[in-house]
Amino acid sequence: MTARAVWVNGQAVADAAHAVAYADRGFNYGDGLFETALLRDGTVRFLAAHLQRLRESCERLRIAYPGDAQLTADILGVSGKERDGVIKVVVTRGAWGRGYRPLSHLPSTRVVALHPLPVADANSALTVRWCELRLSRNAVLAGMKHLNRLENVLAQMEWDDAAIGEGLLLDTEGELVSATAGNIFIARYDALLTPDLRYSGVRGVMRGQVLRAAVELGLSVSEEPLWPHDLEHATEVFITSALRGIRPVIALESRQWEAGPQARRLSAALGL
Amino acid sequence: MTARAVWVNGQAVADAAHAVAYADRGFNYGDGLFETALLRDGTVRFLAAHLQRLRESCERLRIAYPGDAQLTADILGVSGKERDGVIKVVVTRGAWGRGYRPLSHLPSTRVVALHPLPVADANSALTVRWCELRLSRNAVLAGMKHLNRLENVLAQMEWDDAAIGEGLLLDTEGELVSATAGNIFIARYDALLTPDLRYSGVRGVMRGQVLRAAVELGLSVSEEPLWPHDLEHATEVFITSALRGIRPVIALESRQWEAGPQARRLSAALGL
Repeated sequence: MTARAVWVNGQAVADAAHAVAYADRGFNYGDGLFETALLRDGTVRFLAAHLQRLRESCERLRIAYPGDAQLTADILGVSGKERDGVIKVVVTRGAWGRGYRPLSHLPSTRVVALHPLPVADANSALTVRWCELRLSRNAVLAGMKHLNRLENVLAQMEWDDAAIGEGLLLDTEGELVSATAGNIFIARYDALLTPDLRYSGVRGVMRGQVLRAAVELGLSVSEEPLWPHDLEHATEVFITSALRGIRPVIALESRQWEAGPQARRLSAALGL
Repeated sequence: MTARAVWVNGQAVADAAHAVAYADRGFNYGDGLFETALLRDGTVRFLAAHLQRLRESCERLRIAYPGDAQLTADILGVSGKERDGVIKVVVTRGAWGRGYRPLSHLPSTRVVALHPLPVADANSALTVRWCELRLSRNAVLAGMKHLNRLENVLAQMEWDDAAIGEGLLLDTEGELVSATAGNIFIARYDALLTPDLRYSGVRGVMRGQVLRAAVELGLSVSEEPLWPHDLEHATEVFITSALRGIRPVIALESRQWEAGPQARRLSAALGL
Protein backbone atom coordinates (compact mmCIF):
# COMPACT_ATOMS: atom_id res chain seq x y z
CA MET A 1 0.00 0.00 0.00
CA THR A 2 1.81 3.06 -1.26
CA ALA A 3 1.34 6.56 0.10
CA ARG A 4 -0.25 9.01 -2.34
CA ALA A 5 1.68 11.94 -0.90
CA VAL A 6 4.37 12.36 1.75
CA TRP A 7 5.47 15.59 3.38
CA VAL A 8 8.60 15.78 5.55
CA ASN A 9 9.04 18.83 7.77
CA GLY A 10 6.51 20.80 5.76
CA GLN A 11 7.89 19.98 2.31
CA ALA A 12 6.39 17.63 -0.25
CA VAL A 13 8.79 14.74 -0.85
CA ALA A 14 9.54 14.09 -4.51
CA ASP A 15 10.76 10.54 -3.92
CA ALA A 16 9.19 8.59 -1.05
CA ALA A 17 11.95 6.00 -1.39
CA HIS A 18 14.41 8.65 -0.15
CA ALA A 19 12.38 10.56 2.40
CA VAL A 20 13.93 10.05 5.81
CA ALA A 21 17.38 10.96 7.12
CA TYR A 22 19.77 8.12 7.87
CA ALA A 23 20.32 9.59 11.33
CA ASP A 24 16.64 9.98 12.17
CA ARG A 25 15.96 8.63 15.63
CA GLY A 26 12.68 7.17 14.46
CA PHE A 27 14.58 4.86 12.13
CA ASN A 28 17.36 4.03 14.57
CA TYR A 29 15.49 3.58 17.86
CA GLY A 30 11.76 3.91 17.23
CA ASP A 31 12.23 7.17 19.13
CA GLY A 32 8.97 8.82 18.13
CA LEU A 33 5.19 8.64 17.91
CA PHE A 34 2.50 8.27 15.28
CA GLU A 35 -1.16 8.82 14.56
CA THR A 36 -3.41 7.33 11.91
CA ALA A 37 -6.57 9.32 11.29
CA LEU A 38 -9.51 8.88 8.96
CA LEU A 39 -10.12 11.42 6.21
CA ARG A 40 -13.77 11.13 5.20
CA ASP A 41 -15.81 13.47 3.04
CA GLY A 42 -12.97 15.97 3.20
CA THR A 43 -12.76 16.05 7.00
CA VAL A 44 -10.19 14.46 9.30
CA ARG A 45 -12.36 12.75 11.90
CA PHE A 46 -11.48 13.50 15.53
CA LEU A 47 -8.43 15.54 14.49
CA ALA A 48 -8.35 17.49 17.75
CA ALA A 49 -8.21 14.25 19.75
CA HIS A 50 -5.40 12.89 17.57
CA LEU A 51 -3.36 16.06 18.01
CA GLN A 52 -4.03 16.12 21.74
CA ARG A 53 -2.78 12.57 22.18
CA LEU A 54 0.29 13.34 20.07
CA ARG A 55 1.05 16.48 22.06
CA GLU A 56 0.63 14.74 25.42
CA SER A 57 2.82 11.83 24.34
CA CYS A 58 5.51 14.23 23.06
CA GLU A 59 5.48 15.82 26.51
CA ARG A 60 5.86 12.42 28.20
CA LEU A 61 8.82 11.52 25.97
CA ARG A 62 10.24 15.06 25.94
CA ILE A 63 10.03 15.25 22.13
CA ALA A 64 9.47 18.74 20.71
CA TYR A 65 5.78 18.89 19.67
CA PRO A 66 5.60 20.60 16.25
CA GLY A 67 2.37 22.43 17.13
CA ASP A 68 -1.22 22.01 15.99
CA ALA A 69 -0.91 24.72 13.33
CA GLN A 70 2.09 23.19 11.59
CA LEU A 71 0.69 19.66 11.66
CA THR A 72 -2.70 20.84 10.42
CA ALA A 73 -1.02 22.68 7.55
CA ASP A 74 0.90 19.51 6.63
CA ILE A 75 -2.31 17.48 6.72
CA LEU A 76 -4.03 19.96 4.40
CA GLY A 77 -0.96 19.80 2.17
CA VAL A 78 -0.90 16.02 1.75
CA SER A 79 -4.68 15.78 1.45
CA GLY A 80 -4.92 18.23 -1.44
CA LYS A 81 -8.28 17.69 -3.11
CA GLU A 82 -8.73 14.14 -1.85
CA ARG A 83 -11.96 13.57 0.09
CA ASP A 84 -11.18 10.17 1.63
CA GLY A 85 -8.11 8.38 2.84
CA VAL A 86 -5.89 7.63 5.80
CA ILE A 87 -3.73 10.40 7.23
CA LYS A 88 -0.59 9.10 8.91
CA VAL A 89 1.47 11.47 11.06
CA VAL A 90 4.87 10.48 12.46
CA VAL A 91 6.78 12.75 14.84
CA THR A 92 10.26 11.64 15.89
CA ARG A 93 12.82 13.14 18.24
CA GLY A 94 14.78 14.30 15.20
CA ALA A 95 17.94 13.35 13.32
CA TRP A 96 21.09 12.92 15.34
CA GLY A 97 23.92 10.53 14.70
CA ARG A 98 24.63 7.51 16.79
CA GLY A 99 23.99 6.69 20.42
CA TYR A 100 20.87 6.49 22.57
CA ARG A 101 21.38 9.84 24.26
CA PRO A 102 19.71 12.62 22.26
CA LEU A 103 20.91 16.17 21.94
CA SER A 104 18.68 18.34 24.07
CA HIS A 105 16.44 20.75 22.17
CA LEU A 106 16.72 18.69 19.01
CA PRO A 107 14.15 19.84 16.43
CA SER A 108 11.69 17.00 15.91
CA THR A 109 11.04 15.40 12.53
CA ARG A 110 7.47 15.42 11.25
CA VAL A 111 6.31 13.17 8.45
CA VAL A 112 2.72 13.40 7.21
CA ALA A 113 1.34 11.14 4.50
CA LEU A 114 -1.91 10.35 2.74
CA HIS A 115 -2.70 6.69 2.11
CA PRO A 116 -5.68 5.22 0.26
CA LEU A 117 -8.54 3.94 2.40
CA PRO A 118 -8.31 0.23 3.14
CA VAL A 119 -10.83 -1.95 1.33
CA ALA A 120 -14.19 -0.88 2.72
CA ASP A 121 -15.35 -3.09 5.56
CA ALA A 122 -16.65 -0.41 7.91
CA ASN A 123 -18.96 -1.69 10.63
CA SER A 124 -18.69 -5.28 9.50
CA ALA A 125 -18.43 -7.84 12.29
CA LEU A 126 -15.17 -9.51 13.28
CA THR A 127 -14.13 -13.06 14.01
CA VAL A 128 -11.11 -12.85 16.30
CA ARG A 129 -8.48 -15.16 17.79
CA TRP A 130 -6.16 -15.18 20.78
CA CYS A 131 -2.58 -14.19 20.00
CA GLU A 132 0.22 -16.23 21.52
CA LEU A 133 2.47 -13.20 21.81
CA ARG A 134 2.23 -11.46 25.17
CA LEU A 135 2.65 -7.70 25.48
CA SER A 136 5.34 -6.48 27.84
CA ARG A 137 4.38 -4.26 30.77
CA ASN A 138 5.92 -0.84 31.29
CA ALA A 139 3.92 1.99 32.83
CA VAL A 140 6.42 4.51 31.42
CA LEU A 141 5.44 3.63 27.84
CA ALA A 142 1.84 2.50 28.36
CA GLY A 143 -0.92 4.27 26.44
CA MET A 144 1.26 6.02 23.88
CA LYS A 145 1.24 5.25 20.16
CA HIS A 146 5.02 5.22 20.06
CA LEU A 147 7.13 3.72 17.29
CA ASN A 148 8.33 0.69 19.29
CA ARG A 149 5.79 -1.64 17.74
CA LEU A 150 7.62 -4.94 17.19
CA GLU A 151 5.14 -6.71 19.47
CA ASN A 152 2.19 -5.63 17.31
CA VAL A 153 4.04 -6.73 14.17
CA LEU A 154 4.85 -10.15 15.60
CA ALA A 155 1.28 -10.57 16.85
CA GLN A 156 -0.19 -9.88 13.39
CA MET A 157 2.29 -12.32 11.83
CA GLU A 158 0.73 -15.15 13.83
CA TRP A 159 -2.15 -15.72 11.41
CA ASP A 160 -2.86 -15.33 7.72
CA ASP A 161 -6.44 -16.59 7.60
CA ALA A 162 -8.37 -13.72 6.02
CA ALA A 163 -11.48 -14.81 7.92
CA ILE A 164 -9.79 -13.71 11.17
CA GLY A 165 -10.24 -9.96 11.47
CA GLU A 166 -8.26 -9.31 14.63
CA GLY A 167 -6.16 -10.91 17.36
CA LEU A 168 -6.67 -10.32 21.07
CA LEU A 169 -3.62 -9.62 23.19
CA LEU A 170 -2.82 -10.44 26.80
CA ASP A 171 0.17 -9.03 28.64
CA THR A 172 2.93 -11.12 30.17
CA GLU A 173 0.87 -11.49 33.36
CA GLY A 174 -2.19 -12.71 31.44
CA GLU A 175 -4.20 -9.51 31.69
CA LEU A 176 -6.40 -8.56 28.71
CA VAL A 177 -5.02 -5.48 26.92
CA SER A 178 -6.40 -4.90 23.43
CA ALA A 179 -6.56 -6.15 19.87
CA THR A 180 -3.41 -5.89 17.72
CA ALA A 181 -4.62 -2.61 16.13
CA GLY A 182 -7.56 -1.48 18.21
CA ASN A 183 -9.01 -1.37 21.72
CA ILE A 184 -11.49 -3.83 23.17
CA PHE A 185 -14.76 -3.17 24.97
CA ILE A 186 -16.90 -5.69 26.82
CA ALA A 187 -20.58 -4.94 27.43
CA ARG A 188 -22.77 -6.59 30.05
CA TYR A 189 -26.20 -5.23 29.11
CA ASP A 190 -25.78 -1.47 29.68
CA ALA A 191 -22.44 -1.66 31.53
CA LEU A 192 -19.33 -1.08 29.46
CA LEU A 193 -15.86 -2.30 30.49
CA THR A 194 -12.48 -1.69 28.87
CA PRO A 195 -8.90 -2.43 30.04
CA ASP A 196 -7.33 0.49 31.91
CA LEU A 197 -4.04 0.19 29.96
CA ARG A 198 -1.93 1.18 32.96
CA TYR A 199 0.90 -1.18 31.91
CA SER A 200 0.60 -1.66 28.14
CA GLY A 201 -1.46 -0.94 25.05
CA VAL A 202 -2.40 2.24 23.23
CA ARG A 203 -5.08 4.67 24.42
CA GLY A 204 -6.89 4.80 21.11
CA VAL A 205 -8.55 7.97 19.92
CA MET A 206 -11.72 6.00 19.13
CA ARG A 207 -11.53 4.41 22.60
CA GLY A 208 -11.65 7.90 24.09
CA GLN A 209 -14.59 8.91 21.90
CA VAL A 210 -16.50 5.75 22.84
CA LEU A 211 -15.93 6.34 26.56
CA ARG A 212 -17.19 9.92 26.24
CA ALA A 213 -20.21 8.97 24.12
CA ALA A 214 -21.11 6.08 26.45
CA VAL A 215 -21.34 8.44 29.41
CA GLU A 216 -23.55 10.79 27.39
CA LEU A 217 -25.80 7.83 26.50
CA GLY A 218 -26.21 7.00 30.19
CA LEU A 219 -24.21 3.75 30.08
CA SER A 220 -22.23 2.67 33.10
CA VAL A 221 -18.56 2.87 32.08
CA SER A 222 -15.45 1.45 33.74
CA GLU A 223 -11.76 1.37 32.82
CA GLU A 224 -10.27 -1.39 34.95
CA PRO A 225 -7.96 -4.41 34.87
CA LEU A 226 -9.68 -7.13 32.81
CA TRP A 227 -8.83 -10.79 32.28
CA PRO A 228 -9.89 -13.36 29.70
CA HIS A 229 -12.61 -14.67 32.04
CA ASP A 230 -14.29 -11.27 31.85
CA LEU A 231 -15.34 -12.22 28.32
CA GLU A 232 -17.40 -15.12 29.68
CA HIS A 233 -20.28 -12.99 30.90
CA ALA A 234 -20.13 -10.46 28.06
CA THR A 235 -23.41 -9.81 26.27
CA GLU A 236 -21.49 -7.97 23.57
CA VAL A 237 -17.84 -7.42 22.60
CA PHE A 238 -16.48 -4.84 20.20
CA ILE A 239 -13.18 -3.47 18.95
CA THR A 240 -12.56 0.19 18.27
CA SER A 241 -10.09 2.03 16.07
CA ALA A 242 -9.90 5.44 14.44
CA LEU A 243 -9.80 3.81 11.01
CA ARG A 244 -12.24 0.97 11.46
CA GLY A 245 -14.72 2.55 13.84
CA ILE A 246 -16.66 0.27 16.23
CA ARG A 247 -16.57 -3.34 15.10
CA PRO A 248 -18.69 -6.03 16.77
CA VAL A 249 -16.87 -9.24 17.64
CA ILE A 250 -19.10 -12.19 16.74
CA ALA A 251 -16.76 -15.13 17.32
CA LEU A 252 -13.69 -15.99 19.42
CA GLU A 253 -12.74 -19.64 19.08
CA SER A 254 -15.82 -21.58 20.30
CA ARG A 255 -17.50 -18.49 21.79
CA GLN A 256 -20.06 -16.54 19.75
CA TRP A 257 -21.87 -13.24 20.25
CA GLU A 258 -24.50 -11.27 18.38
CA ALA A 259 -23.62 -7.86 17.00
CA GLY A 260 -25.25 -5.99 19.86
CA PRO A 261 -27.18 -2.81 20.51
CA GLN A 262 -24.49 -0.87 22.39
CA ALA A 263 -22.05 -0.93 19.47
CA ARG A 264 -24.85 0.30 17.20
CA ARG A 265 -25.91 3.07 19.57
CA LEU A 266 -22.33 4.25 20.05
CA SER A 267 -21.62 4.19 16.30
CA ALA A 268 -24.71 6.28 15.70
CA ALA A 269 -23.86 8.71 18.50
CA LEU A 270 -20.38 9.22 17.03
CA GLY A 271 -21.61 9.57 13.44
CA LEU A 272 -19.57 6.58 12.25
CA MET B 1 27.95 12.90 15.27
CA THR B 2 27.57 12.57 11.53
CA ALA B 3 28.22 9.42 9.54
CA ARG B 4 31.22 9.59 7.21
CA ALA B 5 29.62 7.24 4.69
CA VAL B 6 26.24 5.53 4.40
CA TRP B 7 25.33 2.67 2.08
CA VAL B 8 21.73 1.58 1.58
CA ASN B 9 21.12 -1.81 -0.05
CA GLY B 10 24.63 -1.91 -1.43
CA GLN B 11 24.69 1.62 -2.87
CA ALA B 12 26.54 4.63 -1.51
CA VAL B 13 24.03 7.28 -0.49
CA ALA B 14 24.76 10.72 -1.89
CA ASP B 15 22.61 12.54 0.65
CA ALA B 16 22.32 11.00 4.11
CA ALA B 17 19.44 13.38 4.86
CA HIS B 18 17.37 11.48 2.27
CA ALA B 19 18.52 7.91 2.73
CA VAL B 20 15.61 5.84 4.00
CA ALA B 21 12.24 5.10 2.38
CA TYR B 22 9.17 6.64 3.94
CA ALA B 23 7.56 3.21 4.06
CA ASP B 24 10.52 1.45 5.68
CA ARG B 25 9.35 -0.69 8.55
CA GLY B 26 12.38 0.30 10.60
CA PHE B 27 11.16 3.89 10.60
CA ASN B 28 7.49 3.08 11.16
CA TYR B 29 7.65 0.29 13.74
CA GLY B 30 11.26 -0.26 14.78
CA ASP B 31 10.81 -3.50 12.84
CA GLY B 32 14.47 -4.39 12.47
CA LEU B 33 17.84 -5.00 14.11
CA PHE B 34 21.21 -3.34 14.38
CA GLU B 35 24.86 -3.92 15.18
CA THR B 36 27.59 -1.50 16.15
CA ALA B 37 31.08 -2.86 15.63
CA LEU B 38 34.54 -1.45 16.20
CA LEU B 39 36.82 -0.84 13.23
CA ARG B 40 40.38 -0.72 14.56
CA ASP B 41 43.63 -0.81 12.62
CA GLY B 42 41.67 -1.67 9.50
CA THR B 43 39.89 -4.69 11.01
CA VAL B 44 36.30 -5.02 12.20
CA ARG B 45 36.70 -6.62 15.62
CA PHE B 46 34.56 -9.72 16.25
CA LEU B 47 32.82 -9.33 12.89
CA ALA B 48 31.83 -12.99 12.73
CA ALA B 49 30.11 -12.74 16.12
CA HIS B 50 28.25 -9.57 15.05
CA LEU B 51 27.01 -11.23 11.87
CA GLN B 52 26.05 -14.40 13.74
CA ARG B 53 23.91 -12.46 16.23
CA LEU B 54 22.31 -10.50 13.39
CA ARG B 55 21.52 -13.68 11.45
CA GLU B 56 20.07 -15.44 14.48
CA SER B 57 17.93 -12.43 15.40
CA CYS B 58 16.68 -12.14 11.80
CA GLU B 59 15.61 -15.78 12.07
CA ARG B 60 13.78 -15.14 15.34
CA LEU B 61 11.91 -12.16 13.84
CA ARG B 62 11.52 -13.80 10.40
CA ILE B 63 13.34 -10.93 8.68
CA ALA B 64 15.26 -11.90 5.53
CA TYR B 65 18.96 -12.02 6.50
CA PRO B 66 20.97 -10.31 3.73
CA GLY B 67 23.85 -12.79 4.01
CA ASP B 68 27.38 -12.50 5.36
CA ALA B 69 28.85 -11.81 1.92
CA GLN B 70 26.61 -8.89 1.08
CA LEU B 71 26.98 -7.29 4.52
CA THR B 72 30.75 -7.76 4.47
CA ALA B 73 30.93 -6.11 1.04
CA ASP B 74 28.88 -3.17 2.34
CA ILE B 75 31.19 -2.85 5.34
CA LEU B 76 34.25 -2.80 3.08
CA GLY B 77 32.45 -0.23 0.95
CA VAL B 78 31.71 2.24 3.73
CA SER B 79 35.09 1.73 5.38
CA GLY B 80 37.07 2.62 2.27
CA LYS B 81 40.58 3.47 3.38
CA GLU B 82 39.63 4.35 6.95
CA ARG B 83 41.52 2.40 9.61
CA ASP B 84 39.40 3.25 12.66
CA GLY B 85 35.78 4.01 13.32
CA VAL B 86 32.42 2.60 14.26
CA ILE B 87 30.55 0.42 11.79
CA LYS B 88 26.79 0.53 12.25
CA VAL B 89 24.65 -2.02 10.43
CA VAL B 90 20.83 -1.78 10.39
CA VAL B 91 18.69 -4.50 8.83
CA THR B 92 14.93 -3.90 8.69
CA ARG B 93 12.05 -6.03 7.46
CA GLY B 94 11.86 -3.80 4.38
CA ALA B 95 9.68 -1.05 2.97
CA TRP B 96 5.98 -1.68 2.86
CA GLY B 97 3.22 0.86 3.30
CA ARG B 98 1.02 1.05 6.31
CA GLY B 99 -0.18 -1.53 8.82
CA TYR B 100 1.62 -3.84 11.24
CA ARG B 101 1.23 -6.96 9.11
CA PRO B 102 4.18 -7.32 6.72
CA LEU B 103 4.09 -8.77 3.27
CA SER B 104 5.66 -12.20 3.41
CA HIS B 105 9.00 -12.58 1.62
CA LEU B 106 9.60 -8.84 1.75
CA PRO B 107 13.21 -8.04 0.79
CA SER B 108 14.92 -6.59 3.85
CA THR B 109 16.55 -3.16 3.92
CA ARG B 110 20.22 -3.00 4.85
CA VAL B 111 21.90 0.22 5.89
CA VAL B 112 25.60 0.23 6.68
CA ALA B 113 27.44 3.33 7.87
CA LEU B 114 30.84 4.41 9.10
CA HIS B 115 30.96 6.79 12.05
CA PRO B 116 34.00 8.39 13.66
CA LEU B 117 35.31 6.75 16.82
CA PRO B 118 33.93 8.32 19.99
CA VAL B 119 36.37 10.40 22.01
CA ALA B 120 38.96 7.91 23.19
CA ASP B 121 38.29 6.64 26.67
CA ALA B 122 39.08 2.96 26.13
CA ASN B 123 39.66 0.99 29.31
CA SER B 124 39.07 3.97 31.55
CA ALA B 125 37.07 3.26 34.68
CA LEU B 126 33.41 4.17 35.06
CA THR B 127 31.37 5.83 37.76
CA VAL B 128 27.79 4.60 37.33
CA ARG B 129 24.32 5.33 38.69
CA TRP B 130 21.03 3.49 39.05
CA CYS B 131 18.46 4.39 36.41
CA GLU B 132 14.89 4.99 37.51
CA LEU B 133 13.50 3.58 34.28
CA ARG B 134 12.68 -0.12 34.49
CA LEU B 135 13.05 -2.39 31.47
CA SER B 136 9.98 -4.32 30.39
CA ARG B 137 10.10 -8.13 30.33
CA ASN B 138 9.33 -10.11 27.19
CA ALA B 139 11.10 -13.38 26.46
CA VAL B 140 10.09 -13.10 22.79
CA LEU B 141 12.25 -9.99 22.34
CA ALA B 142 14.93 -10.61 24.98
CA GLY B 143 18.55 -10.74 23.90
CA MET B 144 18.15 -9.17 20.46
CA LYS B 145 19.56 -5.80 19.45
CA HIS B 146 16.27 -4.82 17.83
CA LEU B 147 15.26 -1.28 16.91
CA ASN B 148 12.64 -0.88 19.69
CA ARG B 149 14.98 1.08 21.93
CA LEU B 150 12.86 3.79 23.53
CA GLU B 151 13.64 2.39 26.97
CA ASN B 152 17.39 2.81 26.41
CA VAL B 153 16.84 6.35 25.13
CA LEU B 154 14.73 7.33 28.14
CA ALA B 155 17.23 5.76 30.52
CA GLN B 156 20.14 7.77 29.07
CA MET B 157 18.07 10.95 29.27
CA GLU B 158 17.93 10.60 33.05
CA TRP B 159 21.32 12.18 33.66
CA ASP B 160 23.61 14.73 32.04
CA ASP B 161 26.49 14.68 34.49
CA ALA B 162 29.52 13.88 32.34
CA ALA B 163 31.19 12.26 35.35
CA ILE B 164 28.60 9.45 35.19
CA GLY B 165 29.74 6.99 32.54
CA GLU B 166 26.81 4.59 32.57
CA GLY B 167 23.45 3.82 34.15
CA LEU B 168 22.48 0.42 35.54
CA LEU B 169 19.07 -0.94 34.63
CA LEU B 170 16.66 -3.18 36.51
CA ASP B 171 13.59 -4.73 34.94
CA THR B 172 10.03 -4.12 36.10
CA GLU B 173 10.42 -6.93 38.69
CA GLY B 174 13.61 -5.43 40.10
CA GLU B 175 16.02 -7.90 38.50
CA LEU B 176 19.42 -6.57 37.39
CA VAL B 177 19.69 -6.57 33.57
CA SER B 178 22.51 -4.46 32.17
CA ALA B 179 23.86 -0.97 31.65
CA THR B 180 22.08 1.33 29.18
CA ALA B 181 24.55 0.47 26.39
CA GLY B 182 26.51 -2.50 27.65
CA ASN B 183 26.33 -5.68 29.71
CA ILE B 184 27.31 -6.03 33.34
CA PHE B 185 29.59 -8.58 34.99
CA ILE B 186 30.08 -9.14 38.70
CA ALA B 187 33.22 -10.90 39.93
CA ARG B 188 33.66 -12.56 43.31
CA TYR B 189 37.36 -13.38 43.28
CA ASP B 190 37.63 -15.83 40.37
CA ALA B 191 33.89 -16.43 39.93
CA LEU B 192 32.16 -14.38 37.24
CA LEU B 193 28.41 -13.70 37.20
CA THR B 194 26.27 -11.98 34.58
CA PRO B 195 22.48 -11.68 34.16
CA ASP B 196 21.00 -14.43 31.99
CA LEU B 197 18.86 -11.95 29.98
CA ARG B 198 15.97 -14.40 29.63
CA TYR B 199 13.38 -11.58 29.85
CA SER B 200 15.14 -8.39 28.70
CA GLY B 201 18.40 -6.82 27.65
CA VAL B 202 20.75 -7.37 24.73
CA ARG B 203 23.15 -10.32 24.44
CA GLY B 204 26.14 -8.17 23.65
CA VAL B 205 28.87 -9.41 21.33
CA MET B 206 31.52 -8.40 23.88
CA ARG B 207 29.53 -10.23 26.60
CA GLY B 208 29.80 -13.40 24.51
CA GLN B 209 33.54 -12.92 24.01
CA VAL B 210 34.09 -12.33 27.72
CA LEU B 211 32.16 -15.48 28.66
CA ARG B 212 34.22 -17.52 26.21
CA ALA B 213 37.54 -16.02 27.30
CA ALA B 214 36.68 -16.45 30.99
CA VAL B 215 36.19 -20.19 30.52
CA GLU B 216 39.51 -20.40 28.72
CA LEU B 217 41.17 -18.56 31.59
CA GLY B 218 39.77 -21.10 34.04
CA LEU B 219 37.33 -18.72 35.74
CA SER B 220 34.06 -20.04 37.10
CA VAL B 221 31.32 -18.48 34.94
CA SER B 222 27.57 -18.30 35.46
CA GLU B 223 24.69 -16.67 33.58
CA GLU B 224 21.84 -16.45 36.06
CA PRO B 225 19.16 -14.15 37.45
CA LEU B 226 20.90 -11.40 39.43
CA TRP B 227 19.53 -8.73 41.74
CA PRO B 228 20.95 -5.48 43.09
CA HIS B 229 22.03 -7.21 46.32
CA ASP B 230 24.38 -9.38 44.25
CA LEU B 231 26.56 -6.29 43.90
CA GLU B 232 27.13 -6.19 47.65
CA HIS B 233 29.62 -9.04 47.71
CA ALA B 234 31.29 -8.19 44.42
CA THR B 235 35.06 -7.91 44.49
CA GLU B 236 34.95 -6.35 41.03
CA VAL B 237 32.30 -5.03 38.63
CA PHE B 238 32.70 -4.26 34.95
CA ILE B 239 30.67 -3.28 31.92
CA THR B 240 31.27 -4.65 28.45
CA SER B 241 30.46 -3.37 24.99
CA ALA B 242 31.76 -3.95 21.49
CA LEU B 243 32.75 -0.29 21.23
CA ARG B 244 34.03 0.39 24.73
CA GLY B 245 35.58 -2.96 25.57
CA ILE B 246 35.74 -4.02 29.22
CA ARG B 247 35.30 -1.08 31.57
CA PRO B 248 35.83 -1.39 35.32
CA VAL B 249 33.13 0.16 37.48
CA ILE B 250 34.75 2.01 40.36
CA ALA B 251 31.78 3.74 41.96
CA LEU B 252 28.01 3.27 42.28
CA GLU B 253 26.48 5.82 44.63
CA SER B 254 28.21 5.23 47.99
CA ARG B 255 29.76 1.92 46.91
CA GLN B 256 33.31 1.83 45.55
CA TRP B 257 35.44 -0.82 43.92
CA GLU B 258 39.00 -1.07 42.66
CA ALA B 259 39.62 -1.68 38.96
CA GLY B 260 40.27 -5.38 39.39
CA PRO B 261 42.44 -8.14 37.99
CA GLN B 262 39.73 -10.10 36.13
CA ALA B 263 38.82 -7.17 33.87
CA ARG B 264 42.52 -6.70 33.10
CA ARG B 265 43.09 -10.41 32.39
CA LEU B 266 40.01 -10.62 30.15
CA SER B 267 40.98 -7.45 28.25
CA ALA B 268 44.41 -8.86 27.64
CA ALA B 269 43.05 -12.25 26.57
CA LEU B 270 40.75 -10.57 24.05
CA GLY B 271 43.40 -8.20 22.72
CA LEU B 272 41.42 -5.10 23.72
